[in-house]
Amino acid sequence: MLVAVCGPNEATDEEVALAERLGELLARAGATVICGGRGGVMAAVCRGAKQAGGTTIGILPGTDPREANRWVDYPLCTGIGEARNAVVVASGQVVIAVGGGLGTLSEIALALKLGRPVIALRTWPLDPELLARTGARLVTVTSAEEAAQRALEHGRTGQSG
Amino acid sequence: MLVAVCGPNEATDEEVALAERLGELLARAGATVICGGRGGVMAAVCRGAKQAGGTTIGILPGTDPREANRWVDYPLCTGIGEARNAVVVASGQVVIAVGGGLGTLSEIALALKLGRPVIALRTWPLDPELLARTGARLVTVTSAEEAAQRALEHGRTGQSG
Amino acid sequence: MLVAVCGPNEATDEEVALAERLGELLARAGATVICGGRGGVMAAVCRGAKQAGGTTIGILPGTDPREANRWVDYPLCTGIGEARNAVVVASGQVVIAVGGGLGTLSEIALALKLGRPVIALRTWPLDPELLARTGARLVTVTSAEEAAQRALEHGRTGQSG
Amino acid sequence: MLVAVCGPNEATDEEVALAERLGELLARAGATVICGGRGGVMAAVCRGAKQAGGTTIGILPGTDPREANRWVDYPLCTGIGEARNAVVVASGQVVIAVGGGLGTLSEIALALKLGRPVIALRTWPLDPELLARTGARLVTVTSAEEAAQRALEHGRTGQSG
Repeated sequence: MLVAVCGPNEATDEEVALAERLGELLARAGATVICGGRGGVMAAVCRGAKQAGGTTIGILPGTDPREANRWVDYPLCTGIGEARNAVVVASGQVVIAVGGGLGTLSEIALALKLGRPVIALRTWPLDPELLARTGARLVTVTSAEEAAQRALEHGRTGQSG
Repeated sequence: MLVAVCGPNEATDEEVALAERLGELLARAGATVICGGRGGVMAAVCRGAKQAGGTTIGILPGTDPREANRWVDYPLCTGIGEARNAVVVASGQVVIAVGGGLGTLSEIALALKLGRPVIALRTWPLDPELLARTGARLVTVTSAEEAAQRALEHGRTGQSG
Repeated sequence: MLVAVCGPNEATDEEVALAERLGELLARAGATVICGGRGGVMAAVCRGAKQAGGTTIGILPGTDPREANRWVDYPLCTGIGEARNAVVVASGQVVIAVGGGLGTLSEIALALKLGRPVIALRTWPLDPELLARTGARLVTVTSAEEAAQRALEHGRTGQSG
Repeated sequence: MLVAVCGPNEATDEEVALAERLGELLARAGATVICGGRGGVMAAVCRGAKQAGGTTIGILPGTDPREANRWVDYPLCTGIGEARNAVVVASGQVVIAVGGGLGTLSEIALALKLGRPVIALRTWPLDPELLARTGARLVTVTSAEEAAQRALEHGRTGQSG
């Protein structure tokens, strides 16, 4: 199962701790972590996953694989800049957003637009009325444990990847 | 001056009316309208601009120029799907968001991430605290007139395009 | 009618002269020139088109409109790097390739793959046997006059754009 | 080491056999195979790699992971259409082209443009004079064994990925 985890390159300590724990939980359950491959939340979720023996894929904005953080197993170079956010979320069967960057907000929106379920953990709250109008599937959680659990449920019931 | 206008393909009557009026005001001031080229808000802003003798560019998700609404002068086919949202906003010196789609939300986020000033008209409210942390330039307005005025100010003071 | 013209950023004197003449001929016939927006053949075709009173669109690899040459009317910022070559050719109803860069070769291939007719002027010769196997429409010409004429024929007989 | 293998979706029997053998040789040497994830040469190189216990990544043009052939371990959904060819080649430390499709030709050109070394096996011959002018690194080989060997040499001497 492929789980996309989105979060800012410049993260708070709390976001980093949540992301690292999340990476660990996903890896233990056998899920592969996909992210944007850089620092902050992206580095933390990869570090957590690797510490638990998992696999990590980093989908980079540029064309130099050395842009990847050192816990990325497979650094993929898109060269398409911020548009790579669409690739990160489309590649996950489910998307977990952690923390409050603008790239993260774009990833939540693109994921929902593409029909990917999104699990929101300490990230942008979205206007409930506008969200209801779109029919999108967004679940808000409050811990890394709950985020991982909800993501893994999609792997058991959703389409395979 | 190139102004990107973002809004949903399936729009409410109010969003359509705002977008049409906005297109008219931008065209009268000599600005070129860039948008996603399809229906709803995108068609309305192009229709308004053409009725006022303006010029319109539609940046399409697919590869068939016939996807464009009939008020698009220059239908550009990206073939890159939802990732074309990043191209729409990067191509505007300033971005105006009208209405509440998920694609629109992604465009607000991508525009701010790329450093483009965003003018928000009846669209997603964003969490003020998280927004302040990013340092992004977002202005909320309540009418098409104010949106056009604020956009045109950027054309006078900002970088040329 | 939108005609995409592809050619290298670092061009020979002969390529520049051909591209400038081509821009002039396309503009006189009322066609809009689309290109990658930068130097060499791209600058020359825009300069020729503007001298004949035409319109030019530059589809840039980066996010800064100042990357465009000064004969581009509408600088569009894709931010997707070399992948923007696919956008250039998909946006033309017909594609004219002038000169021998690697980006140009990718544009010929992408255009043919997308089903766009390609007119080849002093550019990469392609293996006739492999080309026949693909069923692609490639016409080789030897002058700017012939290139413009063949391109304009597509505008009269082909799909509108 | 990440090796990108490019080739047509509709391949000849000879191309399929070469690609399958190539996948086997790369996997045995511990390299990870990256490709476009679909049929023909792409399916064959993945099948060969999996039979030898290797790892495969498929970079798909669309947003549905079920587009991937069944020997792809990690199906990544770009949603950017033909522009994904740029992502495939940018993600390889070295690129091997097998067979004669138009997408393959675009991948050779994009890889060389991005500075990736290209190994050509039964694919488009390129004009030597124009190629020399670009300064690109293209090596032509005649067997899967030689292709694998030359690719692996880049892994030993080149930048890590």
